[in-house]
Amino acid sequence: MPIAQNGAVKVFYDTYGQGTPIVFLHPWSTNGYIWYYQVFSFARTNQVIVIDHRGHGRSDKPAGGYSIQEHASDVRAVMDAAGAQKAIIVGNSIGGMMAMQFALSYPDRVKGLLILSSGTALGENMPKETAAAFQSDYLGTFGALMEGAVSAKSKRERPEILDVMRAHFAVQSNFPKHVFDSSLADPNGVFNWNIKSRLASIKAPTLVVAGEEDQATPVEANKYLADNIPGAKLLTVKDVGHFHQLEKPLEFNATLKEFVTGLG
Amino acid sequence: MPIAQNGAVKVFYDTYGQGTPIVFLHPWSTNGYIWYYQVFSFARTNQVIVIDHRGHGRSDKPAGGYSIQEHASDVRAVMDAAGAQKAIIVGNSIGGMMAMQFALSYPDRVKGLLILSSGTALGENMPKETAAAFQSDYLGTFGALMEGAVSAKSKRERPEILDVMRAHFAVQSNFPKHVFDSSLADPNGVFNWNIKSRLASIKAPTLVVAGEEDQATPVEANKYLADNIPGAKLLTVKDVGHFHQLEKPLEFNATLKEFVTGLG
Repeated sequence: MPIAQNGAVKVFYDTYGQGTPIVFLHPWSTNGYIWYYQVFSFARTNQVIVIDHRGHGRSDKPAGGYSIQEHASDVRAVMDAAGAQKAIIVGNSIGGMMAMQFALSYPDRVKGLLILSSGTALGENMPKETAAAFQSDYLGTFGALMEGAVSAKSKRERPEILDVMRAHFAVQSNFPKHVFDSSLADPNGVFNWNIKSRLASIKAPTLVVAGEEDQATPVEANKYLADNIPGAKLLTVKDVGHFHQLEKPLEFNATLKEFVTGLG
Repeated sequence: MPIAQNGAVKVFYDTYGQGTPIVFLHPWSTNGYIWYYQVFSFARTNQVIVIDHRGHGRSDKPAGGYSIQEHASDVRAVMDAAGAQKAIIVGNSIGGMMAMQFALSYPDRVKGLLILSSGTALGENMPKETAAAFQSDYLGTFGALMEGAVSAKSKRERPEILDVMRAHFAVQSNFPKHVFDSSLADPNGVFNWNIKSRLASIKAPTLVVAGEEDQATPVEANKYLADNIPGAKLLTVKDVGHFHQLEKPLEFNATLKEFVTGLG
């Protein structure tokens, strides 16, 4: 059964294929489905592991425990359950934070990091009005955030992306409000987690990928990561927002393939 | 845990949301991921249930037992496990066959049928060369079938669809060769299952949707269903092949929404 037990928390995962493991970590409020155009393509040559983070999708949704460190320890539990000793970790947004934290906490388990549209200490630049609006109009504020997270071209040509991004958090059984609240309040949660002083300690080969039109984690937030992780490279992508894997799936897959191949 | 037990076979399913249940049944060789752009959108207003058929994805893959009747009994087992008494069944390709068989075997459990790109007795029109080619060059023949199952516009604008369709059956842990062989040989399997004489007994309100460019289950195969299921309507869709839910997701969702609303 595709479940890893981490303490009291059951974490759902999917695994297909054989070879060097690649772990995919989705953004906040979404779930493993977001990697549909990666899972089977990469399972032709690799062991692919897709996780639903605690609080999301098919995993347990405890009242609290949403620090990035706890999420990273779930990744370790899943890799143990799936028999993956050392993996390439691909993380988007909060998934990228988990990937970086994982590389700090369990450096021996990482072969490489692909950080897609992420950052650290994101709350520092969040306007106070946004925080207040999240309290007064949860669905509306989240929806506006998503609106700015998808490129103009994607909105025009793939309108289903914004639709599904809005649907994920409107469905309580996928992403309940208490998970949002607890993540937001956690001193090491999605907006407060801060590893600025530790980025230099990440030793894994790292590629940071940023969408030019991403207003959720703008290019500068990603550039900061690439500038401070030793040896990291930054790739910025045109006509893409926060969700490269859905907005231009085959282009993203080519980038990931090249990264995987380059790691040997 | 999202597993239904049907005799010795474990069937994986996902469920989100509340309200009138909608069950989604995927095509041969694919899996539940194909409904990504439907699951969360419809879970806003309905209980959505997505099944991985036996032999596919995260479900058990026994040596045999791939008649459409056995697949339909898995649907019943999942609905029992998910607490869904009566559902709208949406089936694509072999999933449509399961939906029709389900309506014949368990008429009280069906509120409506949306049959997307399907047919019955499909093997009657399969050239002998195709059957032979499936034996001599499995991957190549399946790939050619998929090539003809995606519209020109989708191939141009959403090249990831053909890529993922080819990847599903190339990944043995998703769709192993023995499942293909057993389904093909089964007297009630994907190509042999024949309910021509029983279509008139389907009592559920039925909408048949066909893609104009679908070479896998052409418009005529779908028209035959609509012509012979009492009261069924046929909708043909431009620039779409076999996978309307991926090729034009929001257009498909609007059609399904209208069908669901019309059922009251």
